[in-house]
Formats: sequence, structure tokens, C-alpha cells
Amino acid sequence: MKIAALIFDKITVLDIVGPIEVLSWVPGAEIVWVGKEKGPIRAAPTGLALTVEKTLDQAGETDILIVPGGPGVRLLLKDAPVLDWVRRIHARTQWTTSVCTGSLLLGAAGLLTGLEATTHWNSSATLESFGARYRERRVIPQGKIVTSAGVSSGIDMALWLVGQIAGDEVAKAAQLCIEYDPQPPYDAGAPSKAGAAVIERARATVKEIIAKTLAGA
Amino acid sequence: MKIAALIFDKITVLDIVGPIEVLSWVPGAEIVWVGKEKGPIRAAPTGLALTVEKTLDQAGETDILIVPGGPGVRLLLKDAPVLDWVRRIHARTQWTTSVCTGSLLLGAAGLLTGLEATTHWNSSATLESFGARYRERRVIPQGKIVTSAGVSSGIDMALWLVGQIAGDEVAKAAQLCIEYDPQPPYDAGAPSKAGAAVIERARATVKEIIAKTLAGA
Repeated sequence: MKIAALIFDKITVLDIVGPIEVLSWVPGAEIVWVGKEKGPIRAAPTGLALTVEKTLDQAGETDILIVPGGPGVRLLLKDAPVLDWVRRIHARTQWTTSVCTGSLLLGAAGLLTGLEATTHWNSSATLESFGARYRERRVIPQGKIVTSAGVSSGIDMALWLVGQIAGDEVAKAAQLCIEYDPQPPYDAGAPSKAGAAVIERARATVKEIIAKTLAGA
Repeated sequence: MKIAALIFDKITVLDIVGPIEVLSWVPGAEIVWVGKEKGPIRAAPTGLALTVEKTLDQAGETDILIVPGGPGVRLLLKDAPVLDWVRRIHARTQWTTSVCTGSLLLGAAGLLTGLEATTHWNSSATLESFGARYRERRVIPQGKIVTSAGVSSGIDMALWLVGQIAGDEVAKAAQLCIEYDPQPPYDAGAPSKAGAAVIERARATVKEIIAKTLAGA
């Protein structure tokens, strides 16, 4: 079971690492780290340097495609080689998935037209601009396309997907192994729960990070 | 606020990426990726290549130390330069933290003697062999030392820590930004919830991964 993880400069690294850690439990999982150019890319805002192992042309067909998000995804939304690759790979996948604003890339590639889909809560309007019908849900399967909401929701999506592919017991073993028994000290993980001041602060910081990214900082 | 993330070959990459994504919300956060040698290391079992930016000697003092776990931590438990560095850095930190089996390294460095501490549920006996008193809790602060349980518990730990350092509103904004509103499709994230068959499967896989790591595969 080949899993292609698309990574790029200014990725939100938790978008991809959360689900990949879970998907590695699929029997025979072979993870391929794909990007525009081989070599290091840098996550934002954490600064972690990750390595692209295969270029788009080298990646070959894949059973599962996973597209994460992050500020850098905005630099790819008009990138013809990347969008062409997403369409080409998607034509042969068993599952095409996204985490957070990764769904904007699926949308820009034309894959979400008319479908229900989700994304980071702060990017719903952009998602709809690509013809998707935004729903405030954590994981949305539509046929073989599965979108998930912001960042950490990719973990929930991957557990669901492992269950579909390998059954409940394997998915539960993955959950137990990453000890995913969440006990956050706050209950502010969704706009409906966070309150106006927290939403405003989060929006301001995200806006600043995206502005810096688009300015090339 | 300088944050040193210790990374090493065969790390569980979610151990470090989860909390670092949250800790990046501490005002003025400067994250330093520290390891034995500069250059790439590889996570297990996901195969993701990460880059060490500073050697132990180059890292300097830090306000927060975070030690993740993973199969590779077992190769460091008798590594004198790493253990010396952990002790030396810890002497000047504001917070010394661990995720998952990262606490085994704190234990091996002698920092947990007589303290309550936690680790991945499958490594509690090893933790106790270093003189710590294992408790089955998700996050355990003991003075400036904070240990957290398996893998994803580092996210909860980091939210707690951001709250301590920067206040509840910043921590909640971090939670909202990573949309940490967990809705796992199963409730198998702790041994007490998973059932015998799932525990057995998880244990067998972990055992296999650790054996491969110790054999150098």
C-alpha cells in the first residue's frame, strides 16, 4: 500500500505527521515523501527542515495521496505542474485525502467541484471559491476523496481511513500506540467553543503568518 | 524564549511535532533543532527525514528543553555525551519536558529519581528502573520537570505549558489554530479502554519496531 505525502516549503508539519504516524499502521505501508524538488523544505512557523525524497515525476502511482496544508499551500494554488500532478495521481488512487488547507489544493485542481468538503475553519470561503460546499465537520468522506478540518483533525481522519482499509482492530491498535486519548486542558478547539477574543487572536496570528509567507519571509 | 528540541535517528516524529506546533505560540518562541550531529536523521517507522541544525555543543542554554521518544531513544540511554548534555542543559532551563519514551532519557540522566513521572504505557517498567515513580497520567508536572505519556499526549502537555508561560488566552488560540477538538472514531487510546486483543496487537508491533531499531535495521 503506497502512500504519497506531498510536502512543500512552509508546510504545517503537524498536518502531515499526525496522519502519517497513523497510516504507517496500514499493513505493507510504504510512505513516499514527494515534492517539487528533492532536498530540504522548511515548515512554518516551527522551522523544522524536512526532506523531499522524490520529485513529482519520480513519485509514480500511489494508493493513497495525502495533501497537508499550511501557509505555503497558498503559493501552490496556481502552480500548474503541482495541480497537474494532483489530478494525474488522483486518477489512479484508492484514496485521495487532505488535511487542513490541503483541501484548497484539491479544490484548485478541480477535484472538489460540487462536493461537500472541509478545511481549516479560517479558510472556508477560499475553499468555497473552488466550487466545494464547505461543511463544518472534522472528517468528510465523499467517495474516495476524504477532506479533514484544521491540523490535528488529520489524526482522526487517518484513524477512520485505517479502519476502512485494515479494519477496526488495526485502527484501534494505532490509536493505542500513539496513546490518542485526548485530554486537552482547555475546550477551545473549534470556533463554536473558543469565544470571540480567542478567535480574534488566532485569526490575527494566522493572518500574520500567511502575510509573511506570501511576502517570501 | 528559546526552545531546544532534541531529535535523533528513529525518533517518533509526532512526539516532537505535536508539542512544537503548540509551543511555537509562546511569544518570542525560537525553536532550535538539536542533535548529536548536524544533518539528516530519519524517523521510524514513517521514514521522514528531519534535519539537525545544531550539535549539542552548539545549542547553548535554553529556556525549554523538550525530549521526544521513539524506538531510537533506546540507543541513547547509555550515551554519555547525550546524558551529560541533558543534565547540563537542565541545570539552567525554566522547563525540562519529555514526550512518550523521552522520559526514559531524562530518567537515564538521573533527573527523575524519586519523582512521579509518565511515559508510553508500554515502557512503564523501564521508566521505573531509573528510579521514577510511574503514574498512569497524561501530563505530570513536578516542579520544572514535566513528563507526558505516549506520543499524542505531548500536544496536551504543550497546551498546558503555553498556558503556564503565556496565559490561558494564548494557549486557547493555539488549540483553536490547530483545531484540536478531538473526535477519534474509536475510544481505544489508553490500555484501560482498548481491550486485550488491541493491546496485544499494539505490543507486538511496538516490540517488532524496537527489535528492528536495536538491530540497526
